[in-house]
Amino acid sequence: MKFVIQRDQLMESVQHVMKAISSRTAIPILTGLKIEAKETGIKLTGSDSDISIESFIPTEDNGIVNIEQIEAGSIIVQAKYFPDIIRKLPQKTVEIITDNHLNVTIRSGNAEFHLNGQDADEYPQLPQLHTDESFELPTDLLKDLIKQTVFAVSTVETRPILTGVNMKVEEGYLNFVATDSHRLASRRIPLESQTASITFPSVVVPGKSLTELNKILEEDQESVEVSVTENQILFRTKNLYFLSRLLDGKYPETSRLIPEQSKTIVYGQTKELLQSIDRASLLAKESKNNVVRLQTKENTVLEISSNSPEVGKVVDEVTADSIEGEDLKISFSAKYMMDALKAIENDHVKIEFTGAMRPFIIRPIDNDQILQLILPVRTY
Amino acid sequence: MKFVIQRDQLMESVQHVMKAISSRTAIPILTGLKIEAKETGIKLTGSDSDISIESFIPTEDNGIVNIEQIEAGSIIVQAKYFPDIIRKLPQKTVEIITDNHLNVTIRSGNAEFHLNGQDADEYPQLPQLHTDESFELPTDLLKDLIKQTVFAVSTVETRPILTGVNMKVEEGYLNFVATDSHRLASRRIPLESQTASITFPSVVVPGKSLTELNKILEEDQESVEVSVTENQILFRTKNLYFLSRLLDGKYPETSRLIPEQSKTIVYGQTKELLQSIDRASLLAKESKNNVVRLQTKENTVLEISSNSPEVGKVVDEVTADSIEGEDLKISFSAKYMMDALKAIENDHVKIEFTGAMRPFIIRPIDNDQILQLILPVRTY
Repeated sequence: MKFVIQRDQLMESVQHVMKAISSRTAIPILTGLKIEAKETGIKLTGSDSDISIESFIPTEDNGIVNIEQIEAGSIIVQAKYFPDIIRKLPQKTVEIITDNHLNVTIRSGNAEFHLNGQDADEYPQLPQLHTDESFELPTDLLKDLIKQTVFAVSTVETRPILTGVNMKVEEGYLNFVATDSHRLASRRIPLESQTASITFPSVVVPGKSLTELNKILEEDQESVEVSVTENQILFRTKNLYFLSRLLDGKYPETSRLIPEQSKTIVYGQTKELLQSIDRASLLAKESKNNVVRLQTKENTVLEISSNSPEVGKVVDEVTADSIEGEDLKISFSAKYMMDALKAIENDHVKIEFTGAMRPFIIRPIDNDQILQLILPVRTY
Repeated sequence: MKFVIQRDQLMESVQHVMKAISSRTAIPILTGLKIEAKETGIKLTGSDSDISIESFIPTEDNGIVNIEQIEAGSIIVQAKYFPDIIRKLPQKTVEIITDNHLNVTIRSGNAEFHLNGQDADEYPQLPQLHTDESFELPTDLLKDLIKQTVFAVSTVETRPILTGVNMKVEEGYLNFVATDSHRLASRRIPLESQTASITFPSVVVPGKSLTELNKILEEDQESVEVSVTENQILFRTKNLYFLSRLLDGKYPETSRLIPEQSKTIVYGQTKELLQSIDRASLLAKESKNNVVRLQTKENTVLEISSNSPEVGKVVDEVTADSIEGEDLKISFSAKYMMDALKAIENDHVKIEFTGAMRPFIIRPIDNDQILQLILPVRTY
């Protein structure tokens, strides 16, 4: 194998596939990074067997030559050293050569690295997805769907299915739902006419996979093609191939958790509320639950407070845009509320309560695509 | 106690004194931050008993009023919560009030915090330095003296005296020297005529104290006044008072470590050498010593290389400005060499070797105030 490539371009691809590579894996060869050279370009692969990422650098792109002197071949290099080596090379171009004894030479300017490689044939074959059922999503929209839901997945393994985000098509909408059973985050988008016909199974994608995918996806890529099979999901852009396993099991039905009527509705400014709850939570740092109290007052005032007997207490007031319905005193996790408010993406927020012991709903005003739900904490 | 103060100004002072406060201290009250209000201004104090920092905010400064409604008094607040509270207050001004029951109220806009304070009388009295022997140093020069030496202090407690930087006056120069017995860093500056007369004991300042001092000192302060007694050192700027204990014991005589003649002299470009050694050290990540080899070649070429049998090897070439004297093969710690080169502050460097087994010296060209010394590693 041999090729000469732009260092910056190689570096970018290396950083992408590194997102899938873990130094703690049961399969030793997966600590390596696979490099394949063909006439058409260079393909890098990283995998921890849950997530597999391929990044392709085409030999030519829009008439610009990225790679020269290609001799086909493949090798595995140690992912622990390779990224730092490429980053610190002295020149803008890099030459990479392998010999018949799995020696890898990396040359740039007067710097020359000789690494012990491994046989690419020992690298597990990545599963190829065979499905016609793929659909396209604008990249920025997919990133929003992830960011607005993935924080609510469970981080404990007691119910593994809750560590994932439920993706499903329902009534002409694509839905993303995550819940750790104390709160729920959901976002849906209407399917376009050309994709509205797809019948899409309800699948559960590991939260970790979506978090990594969101880091790699660049806004400058217009769209992502999504394909689903029984146990895998593939996200594909022009030069990126991101494959994740799906979680086994049935995702709980979450729609019945969402209250249908409300007794108190608060309209307020998202940022002001967020900052007030952040302040009220400062003294509750220690306690796991980080509970704050919200109370409606006269003249559309909301009192946000918390009390940590050993440290002190805090009382904060926020003027709501308006308050409708019954008076309310309720306690909830400051962290969950801040997570939810950050996902709102609107300057104004609508919060619907159904009494102090019932879940409440946070939405942007005038937008029913985002729904955040939080279970209160019993303190009164 | 009562006062109303600009939040940003209070925040800056809080951040300064926090540098001295540790949550792990044998004296519980030192986990607190002391606030004292007088007609003239507000003084904050933090201490871990090794380092004590006082930051003063004057009531008026150049005709600008910083503090209003002052009622004299003092209190201790919990340093764990106070900085975050001040940072997140909603308005630009903060009102702080205490009552007779050690309750502290912090008010800003509609936010009100009530903290349990502690009696300021329980806070240990900071030692007052009585000495006429003080001298002034330009702030940027003191920061240089620290940065160019403190990295070389020992981090192990086997010889506690080596965890400090030796400050002494000798032959009209102020000297800073640090060594961990594998390498040595020194910087000296000529004393000005007005300070040349001071007789200054040789003292050893804990490296940690100087590191913290360097973080706090701002370039916009023109000069620092330094006072030394038998067991303490005080650095004072207009509104800052930084007191550190000194290390007990006699600092080893280091001047005889420095070779007086050399057999090989290399002149080179600092940055190029640094980057080359950085690359050569990449494969040696694992090994504690992180050893690289330097070898003189024909035509003023230096070969920098390293070899890690399990990973691979690297060979890098740097063209020196010139090489004088005998051929040389030498091995040394890449980390020590990079630390030394970073302290050089000159584009060109002079390295004097006295054979493969003797310490070698790194200096900026045309400047004998900075001297870095490294002991080689035996590999041949």
